[in-house]
Amino acid sequence: MNTTVEIVSERSPCPVATTLDVVGDKWSLLIARDMVNGKKRFGEFQASPEGIPSNILAARLKRMEQTGLISRVPYQDRPPRFEYKLTPRGLNLLPVLREMCRWANIEAPGTWPAPEHFMAPDT
Amino acid sequence: MNTTVEIVSERSPCPVATTLDVVGDKWSLLIARDMVNGKKRFGEFQASPEGIPSNILAARLKRMEQTGLISRVPYQDRPPRFEYKLTPRGLNLLPVLREMCRWANIEAPGTWPAPEHFMAPDT
Repeated sequence: MNTTVEIVSERSPCPVATTLDVVGDKWSLLIARDMVNGKKRFGEFQASPEGIPSNILAARLKRMEQTGLISRVPYQDRPPRFEYKLTPRGLNLLPVLREMCRWANIEAPGTWPAPEHFMAPDT
Repeated sequence: MNTTVEIVSERSPCPVATTLDVVGDKWSLLIARDMVNGKKRFGEFQASPEGIPSNILAARLKRMEQTGLISRVPYQDRPPRFEYKLTPRGLNLLPVLREMCRWANIEAPGTWPAPEHFMAPDT
């Protein structure tokens, strides 16, 4: 699966609606956040503080691969295990994540500041 | 309800997680989009091309008011009818919407370009 997968607008050709068709849930962008922060493996995503249930994590990873946001490579054969990383298409979501950080840091005092590398425009 | 309502991080103090706790669904940011574009009334949101079901629209408007994203003012008494608009807190989500537009316009060719007023930084 690569980033040439076509993204189909499910509800309308509105670009906001189309983005939400792909990542409009409570978890996909958190998995993307983890990958920006260097996490690669199923267990690492599970260990994040939000406590994603394993069945939801598996479903989101599958969908993110189907929509070309992430790719996976095997790192172990028996049993098969994979490492996941953002494709260029997935990494292009970083400006969305950054604006979410700015919003929450203003509107929800007490939220963590994002790591510097996360907010740096050349990440 | 005003924008001094406290936003509570439900899953972690991560600013991405906190924003997704508030607007991490397929509809809330579309309703915000409609309000940026001047729509104010229940029937106007329903008429948007994505076809939001009325029960979901009612639930999302209620929640957006609870989290201080929108305010409502009555425009008719019998039966009671309200107009909705973004608070400053809700309008602060516009940079998130803009980045979603940029992402979809690149990654999902054929999506509509956003209106100029929508993308203008001083909106």
